[in-house]
Amino acid sequence: MIEPRVLKGFRDTLPSVMIDKKELIGKLEKIFRSFGLTPIDTPALEYTEILLGKGGGETDKQIYRFRDNGDRDVSMRFDLTVPLARFVSEHYNELPMPFKRYHIAPVWRGENTQKGRYREFYQCDFDILGSDSICADIDILLMIKAGFDAIQPGEFRINVNHRKVLNAVLRTLGIEDKLVDVLRIIDKIYKIGADAVKSELSELGLTAAQTDGIIDYLHLDIAEKGAGITGDKIFGIIDELAGQVDDDGRKWLEQLRFVFNTVNELGIGDKFSYNPAITRGLDYYTGIVFESFVLDRIQFGSVCSGGRYDNLTALYSKTPVSGVGASFGLDRLLALLEDKSMLSGRASDTDILILNQNPDLMSEYQKAAQLFRKDGLSAEIFFDNKKIIQQYKYAEKKTIRFVILSDDNIKNGQVTLKDIVAQKEYAGINMSEVSGIVNNIKGGK
Amino acid sequence: MIEPRVLKGFRDTLPSVMIDKKELIGKLEKIFRSFGLTPIDTPALEYTEILLGKGGGETDKQIYRFRDNGDRDVSMRFDLTVPLARFVSEHYNELPMPFKRYHIAPVWRGENTQKGRYREFYQCDFDILGSDSICADIDILLMIKAGFDAIQPGEFRINVNHRKVLNAVLRTLGIEDKLVDVLRIIDKIYKIGADAVKSELSELGLTAAQTDGIIDYLHLDIAEKGAGITGDKIFGIIDELAGQVDDDGRKWLEQLRFVFNTVNELGIGDKFSYNPAITRGLDYYTGIVFESFVLDRIQFGSVCSGGRYDNLTALYSKTPVSGVGASFGLDRLLALLEDKSMLSGRASDTDILILNQNPDLMSEYQKAAQLFRKDGLSAEIFFDNKKIIQQYKYAEKKTIRFVILSDDNIKNGQVTLKDIVAQKEYAGINMSEVSGIVNNIKGGK
Repeated sequence: MIEPRVLKGFRDTLPSVMIDKKELIGKLEKIFRSFGLTPIDTPALEYTEILLGKGGGETDKQIYRFRDNGDRDVSMRFDLTVPLARFVSEHYNELPMPFKRYHIAPVWRGENTQKGRYREFYQCDFDILGSDSICADIDILLMIKAGFDAIQPGEFRINVNHRKVLNAVLRTLGIEDKLVDVLRIIDKIYKIGADAVKSELSELGLTAAQTDGIIDYLHLDIAEKGAGITGDKIFGIIDELAGQVDDDGRKWLEQLRFVFNTVNELGIGDKFSYNPAITRGLDYYTGIVFESFVLDRIQFGSVCSGGRYDNLTALYSKTPVSGVGASFGLDRLLALLEDKSMLSGRASDTDILILNQNPDLMSEYQKAAQLFRKDGLSAEIFFDNKKIIQQYKYAEKKTIRFVILSDDNIKNGQVTLKDIVAQKEYAGINMSEVSGIVNNIKGGK
Repeated sequence: MIEPRVLKGFRDTLPSVMIDKKELIGKLEKIFRSFGLTPIDTPALEYTEILLGKGGGETDKQIYRFRDNGDRDVSMRFDLTVPLARFVSEHYNELPMPFKRYHIAPVWRGENTQKGRYREFYQCDFDILGSDSICADIDILLMIKAGFDAIQPGEFRINVNHRKVLNAVLRTLGIEDKLVDVLRIIDKIYKIGADAVKSELSELGLTAAQTDGIIDYLHLDIAEKGAGITGDKIFGIIDELAGQVDDDGRKWLEQLRFVFNTVNELGIGDKFSYNPAITRGLDYYTGIVFESFVLDRIQFGSVCSGGRYDNLTALYSKTPVSGVGASFGLDRLLALLEDKSMLSGRASDTDILILNQNPDLMSEYQKAAQLFRKDGLSAEIFFDNKKIIQQYKYAEKKTIRFVILSDDNIKNGQVTLKDIVAQKEYAGINMSEVSGIVNNIKGGK
């Protein structure tokens, strides 16, 4: 006998979690489609050369890489961005431009599982490629907002920043040459605090004026962790920065202003904040960047992040394709909802269990089930000849609210519907009345 | 520069295919859920020991197997059945019994691609585990029928047989010891024909009487390829066989009779046939077996097959779990629909493209898009400042039927809706009227 077990860092998804996960995905897909995004899929396995490009980073060590039976050097995808770049390069002439796509699929990384991370997890990426318009960025932000509205995980805030504004500030402070190091330190501000940031910046060789300039820029007094800066204060800071940076910096500040003006005009400005500390890594994003937080669960980190990038396809094509995109952390979002006891707890979608009180009536049960399904309900029959108490236990385990009790009168269409939750019986009703009653109760009427 | 390409035997799924594929999956999921089935997921990677068991078969050569960074012997799943067996063994105490699950996910096999097969393909498995009742088998058959009804690929027939009836017939003919070889030959009947089957059976050492007995049993005169035997002839043959086989055989013939009686009583008997030639492989299935065909595309093979099996979990658990299940061939079904020009041809779900005639009006466009989406439509804005002809080309490439034309009057809510297909304009209407008009036209009213 072989011990049934999954690999370290992997896990099964049982029905109660899978039902909620699929519901979550369904809500997000509906939003993506309402904005004109289209779904794609790419292979789980690709040439290692494609996935790693020039390679050399942390990813190389984490990737599932091997030689296939044809001795090809292959790897399992570790994200959906690199496959997207390859996909767009390969199919460029077939795709409408701008190309708006979403892709919800698992990726694999041999990460350290001690951090509570899994080696297989779902990514939910959505991007708009081939448009330089700031309106594409706004559409991505609006989809994030609509996603939160659909999922309702509680009060949320989408924190927005602009990498080129940040660059301009650092340029103005005369520390553009230390950009990468400074970004890495700024990124830690909410973890290590202002004092530690100051001392790390000093260690880097920055003058007191430069260090103070960065701290001023971060507006730690009003930019709360996960919440950012909201309301009219945003425009005050934009005006203030506009007086400090160069022409290039002012150009990008106007983009930021346009973003906040637009969400205000759409009446949803309170969901967005300006957060000057957001950098989103070192070498990928080149424009607007953003992270999103559920305000009473900041500790879960950003549940949807992204930004604008230049030339996604540089490795594979002479035609540069820029874009803007984001990714919902589905597993993180599910963990957050679970932490807030906001998962449905449903073990199935079954509305009605037809109890098996007489195996000879099985084809009558089938007719009843067929009728209920035709009326849009989910209905099961308890097939096996077991005690009624065991049949009720099955209903309980599958969180089925209604059961059908019956006798020979079922041949004339007569049954008894029992609402287990309300402990109420609808005795001797006609089968055709069942769906109406069940739908009314489900609809909360 | 790296050439953007996928591995041999792998492929990308572009939006127009992915939209139809998702729609197909959505229809099937809805049916599975209406029968009380619940979704699960399992890892793409498992211990090789788990997936191959004792191994030694064809599968071993096709599997993607390697050593991970922790030097574990791992493999990518090659089907969803072995992971299900492991899953049920591992989570037995958490699961309701009978356990009804569906699982739609990719699997990987390094198969010979010259046969037009892909090395990554989706399986869509649905099973009822832990019930010996023939009613579980019937539910699986009813789901297949409902699946075809939802997908509407054309006239179809679900061919049913019983492995234990077949065994009883061979036992009666005195050739039970050559079971495996005889099954393999019977399985080829529609490929090689009666004469070749006869001569192969003779070569096996069967007497003329035994060979004739098998040919009689196959009822080749009335069992058409892919269509099987229908109507009252089924019960005639069951009666006839009941007079020939032993008591054990008669028991299983009664199961077959019950299946056909039930579908007749449900008024859907014409979708089911008896096909004595269906064997479904050699050592997995032990009861009812079935294959399903679209009658004007028999050459595509069975698009949904399955059957009943004993002790799925034998390798991993002392608790035997029997079951019955089936699998829709999603990729085959998509290819069949494409062959019949029955795919939607949609390149997106976008209803409305808001043309960009004046970039200064962008936030007005955003307000309009927000309104349309709130009314349940999918709406996009053309962000970039390009010629109108290019914007129409984009609409065409995304199969968008409606565009919004506007000028400064959009500030007062006034726009022009253009139906590109009908070449009709609704000039100077209020934005709030748009969704009503579009929904009416979409609904075919």
